[in-house]
Amino acid sequence: MYFRKELTFSTDRHEDLVDITSEINVAIVESGMEHGVCNIYVPHATSGVLVNENDDPNIIEDLLGVLRKIAPEGSFLHDRIDGNGDAHVKSAIIGPSESIPFKNSQLLLGTWQSVMLCEFDGPKYSRKVIITLFTG
Amino acid sequence: MYFRKELTFSTDRHEDLVDITSEINVAIVESGMEHGVCNIYVPHATSGVLVNENDDPNIIEDLLGVLRKIAPEGSFLHDRIDGNGDAHVKSAIIGPSESIPFKNSQLLLGTWQSVMLCEFDGPKYSRKVIITLFTG
Amino acid sequence: MYFRKELTFSTDRHEDLVDITSEINVAIVESGMEHGVCNIYVPHATSGVLVNENDDPNIIEDLLGVLRKIAPEGSFLHDRIDGNGDAHVKSAIIGPSESIPFKNSQLLLGTWQSVMLCEFDGPKYSRKVIITLFTG
Repeated sequence: MYFRKELTFSTDRHEDLVDITSEINVAIVESGMEHGVCNIYVPHATSGVLVNENDDPNIIEDLLGVLRKIAPEGSFLHDRIDGNGDAHVKSAIIGPSESIPFKNSQLLLGTWQSVMLCEFDGPKYSRKVIITLFTG
Repeated sequence: MYFRKELTFSTDRHEDLVDITSEINVAIVESGMEHGVCNIYVPHATSGVLVNENDDPNIIEDLLGVLRKIAPEGSFLHDRIDGNGDAHVKSAIIGPSESIPFKNSQLLLGTWQSVMLCEFDGPKYSRKVIITLFTG
Repeated sequence: MYFRKELTFSTDRHEDLVDITSEINVAIVESGMEHGVCNIYVPHATSGVLVNENDDPNIIEDLLGVLRKIAPEGSFLHDRIDGNGDAHVKSAIIGPSESIPFKNSQLLLGTWQSVMLCEFDGPKYSRKVIITLFTG
């Protein structure tokens, strides 16, 4: 079995992590599929998808702080073109996708894991996330 | 075809990389599947899965050294809650999964590649790794 | 449905990112599959696969600069063995694979996204990339 759906999210801050776990789980229920693997893919070169804790919002700040230290805004060759070289580097390091197993129509996440859409050059009012489910 | 299995590993050190390649290959043989893709997923927010060389154990130390430099222990907002902010950041950068093709019931790894479970807030005596195989 | 193909690329520089998007799209057309997910896997421990912009070639230089800052050449324990400790660390951080949905026999990449093979210990004249397509 196979199911694909495109979701859309907006980001509020220049750098933002948005928890998209519940929207993905709703899409899995909608698919009628009980088990398989879920690929989550963001088709934007200043964005990313990651999995980590969202219970304490400070973890997001801690991660953004490390990425800013690694790739400081305004320090890149690409900035001559559109000023977002740091966002491309952060996006390349985090990566555009994750693949996560699901069971009973829900992602098999750990207690402290959420799926988050990352935007490093926002705010962006319409960011696509492509969800693909497959069973093999 | 489709096959899912949960494996359990323990980690011995506070930060530890455990080679889980042979256990994954045993699970693939057990599945009876000859070829496909293997998704390896760790449902813990201070853990990760990576692929690299395990022949020289110094590579693990080299990588842990870089991650410690990027995300030094004790320097995070989340540390006020449970003192493991660095582990969450390291986990987010390494990521919770890898997807690797297999053939003749064995992962198609390169000569110098091993699959490693990473723990950044151990030792933990029971870390789950979910193996999902699919052929399409 | 299921399709696997091995592609081969050469890298020209010591550190190099090679755009392999069009070769992957050709393989998808060749498979006869219209939609599904494409796993791109590099079986080399000093290589990686990433997705980002390749329109401005400076983005590649910006990313390589950040990776060199994080993992400076010549500063690792593994260098005693074969002098490429930095390449292993960079490879571990970038990761060996990406999984990307496809539709109408083409990767569902964003306008500014390309798939790139990364080599951190080149030049290498024959680097394999394993493409696996599946529909579920």
